[in-house]
Amino acid sequence: MIPIQKNNLVLEAAKNQSTDTVPVWFMRQAGRSLPEYRAIRGSGSILDTIQNPDLSAEISLQPLRRYGVDAVILYSDIVVPAYAVGFGIEVVPGRGPVVSQPFRSENDLKRLRQLEPEADTEYVVKTVQLLTKEIDVPLIGFAGAPFTVASYLIEGGPSKSYVYTKSMMRSNPKLFHQLMEKLSHLAISSLSSQIEAGASIYQLFDSWAGVLSPREYGAMVAPYSKAIFEALRKYNVPSIHFGVGTSNLLEIMADSGCSTLGIDDRIGLDQAYARTNGKVGLQGNLDPVNILIGTDTTIAESARVLEESAVCDGYIFNLGHGVLPESNPDTLAAVVDFVHQYGTDIRRQARNRAQDK
Amino acid sequence: MIPIQKNNLVLEAAKNQSTDTVPVWFMRQAGRSLPEYRAIRGSGSILDTIQNPDLSAEISLQPLRRYGVDAVILYSDIVVPAYAVGFGIEVVPGRGPVVSQPFRSENDLKRLRQLEPEADTEYVVKTVQLLTKEIDVPLIGFAGAPFTVASYLIEGGPSKSYVYTKSMMRSNPKLFHQLMEKLSHLAISSLSSQIEAGASIYQLFDSWAGVLSPREYGAMVAPYSKAIFEALRKYNVPSIHFGVGTSNLLEIMADSGCSTLGIDDRIGLDQAYARTNGKVGLQGNLDPVNILIGTDTTIAESARVLEESAVCDGYIFNLGHGVLPESNPDTLAAVVDFVHQYGTDIRRQARNRAQDK
Repeated sequence: MIPIQKNNLVLEAAKNQSTDTVPVWFMRQAGRSLPEYRAIRGSGSILDTIQNPDLSAEISLQPLRRYGVDAVILYSDIVVPAYAVGFGIEVVPGRGPVVSQPFRSENDLKRLRQLEPEADTEYVVKTVQLLTKEIDVPLIGFAGAPFTVASYLIEGGPSKSYVYTKSMMRSNPKLFHQLMEKLSHLAISSLSSQIEAGASIYQLFDSWAGVLSPREYGAMVAPYSKAIFEALRKYNVPSIHFGVGTSNLLEIMADSGCSTLGIDDRIGLDQAYARTNGKVGLQGNLDPVNILIGTDTTIAESARVLEESAVCDGYIFNLGHGVLPESNPDTLAAVVDFVHQYGTDIRRQARNRAQDK
Repeated sequence: MIPIQKNNLVLEAAKNQSTDTVPVWFMRQAGRSLPEYRAIRGSGSILDTIQNPDLSAEISLQPLRRYGVDAVILYSDIVVPAYAVGFGIEVVPGRGPVVSQPFRSENDLKRLRQLEPEADTEYVVKTVQLLTKEIDVPLIGFAGAPFTVASYLIEGGPSKSYVYTKSMMRSNPKLFHQLMEKLSHLAISSLSSQIEAGASIYQLFDSWAGVLSPREYGAMVAPYSKAIFEALRKYNVPSIHFGVGTSNLLEIMADSGCSTLGIDDRIGLDQAYARTNGKVGLQGNLDPVNILIGTDTTIAESARVLEESAVCDGYIFNLGHGVLPESNPDTLAAVVDFVHQYGTDIRRQARNRAQDK
């Protein structure tokens, strides 16, 4: 039997290597924007769905079938490890993670025991195993970065001003550090188990880190994210470090030991490249809103992003943030086709220019 | 009769001149955090309160009496001009500006006639006149910048993803430019009337501009803000340009013709100074959350901000965003005293260091 030709474009680009074709996947490519997802998802808690490996694998595969994206991302949630060790967290539809008893004192540390992935999140391991048997593209594992997970645990839910989190960082830094330490271990355990089960790349989501100044982020958050990338280095898989509104933190986030940095839509790829000195691959940058505007605009904006990506070595096309639920799947499909075609042209031109010099 | 010694520290600092004492005021210093405000405000719409000059003047004065801040800001709202020309906008407590029929097509341009401040917003002019008769500190006038006001008119209320605004910018730029043009004129008319009535400085609030990339902000928003600063130059009063989460835009915002740039808490003053080359004064930077933490932390964080401000010529102490409603007025009072004392020390040390060189 001839082995299936593996599509490793995402892995190569995420190692900051130039690829002939620009690979593409979308954050939240699986989920509410897909009718086939809504058809099988049911109305229970997302945390219940995640505990069903067959269903989770099917949901993860839907965007691969529909779009021909170059990577599958595990269908899961960043709060799964905290949930699995019994911290007491739910995901409320339309609202996000909600904690009935927020983390506020040293006593709460007891609620975060170590994660034993084989026992606590066997369903995640099984989903990863089911998926990697099926696909010829990389499977992206993921975890929430300690700060972003901490913000949910401390605030008790999504927040606008992060009052309790910042208060703890500044008035009880010892407790905050203890929490970050525990959450780092949760992320390391969870990601290790995903990689050991077959994920060939992972993304660390520090979605809300941008609310901190570089000084505070550098002193109190970056060391933990760095420790995660460091602990997982032995697996020799590429890694993506992502946040929204992190224009203030790009240099520090790129310096975390990740191999690729996720870029939102609030800064140009050329600017992000200049500020990170090309030392990591870049991913992202198309405003998710562009998917809603109408195909002409969507394609024009995608073309601009691809053109600005020409300065990068490794580049993975993606949105600057997750797919908005009201997105039309046909538009996303058109973007994938366009990226594969025009991205190849752009890369060829960049190579020719480099040779001419 | 000996004339009252005018306290012009805010004006000097806002012109990017070094001052012996660091001046201080707080965005949203008047309002819900003050018990004396809650006592007189009543429960009607804020837009009704604003139409009562005696009440608005009294509310504006409350923080001056309580804190001894170095400036009074007019009690008003950024949607007042659009409201006054009959666009159809309300301010809903706990939610913000709400538009029943959002701005979506060319027809809606008709709903934005020119502002005639003496007739349409006579109450604003009267409040300014009442205030400037009473105070020996500068009165800060203000307006919403065209983009931030446009985002409310187009979205119909506060937004997370600015879908309709960005869609219009990209798929119907002509209409967006027409709207921005109209909103620029509203801002210019309103600010002119405030200055003519006695405001000696003004702040342009582009609170949400940071959701745009530098490319898009520079092309589609900055020209309008620039036009406002340009049109008001004849009055020869200093001006402050403010946004939240605008680390991505600092250079362009500083280049708008403003004399001072407002800095949120997501970037250090030293970094902001370096990026703007010292060509404008700086204002702000203390995280509003710090007011809630407990006086020791609040003062320590204020000290750090003051120390980082030593690189600036003109610097006005302020928060990075508005006072949170749950803030304790005693803490704000302690910050004002501390800034006046420690800011003077910091300035003296900076001068001595400069002389030693």
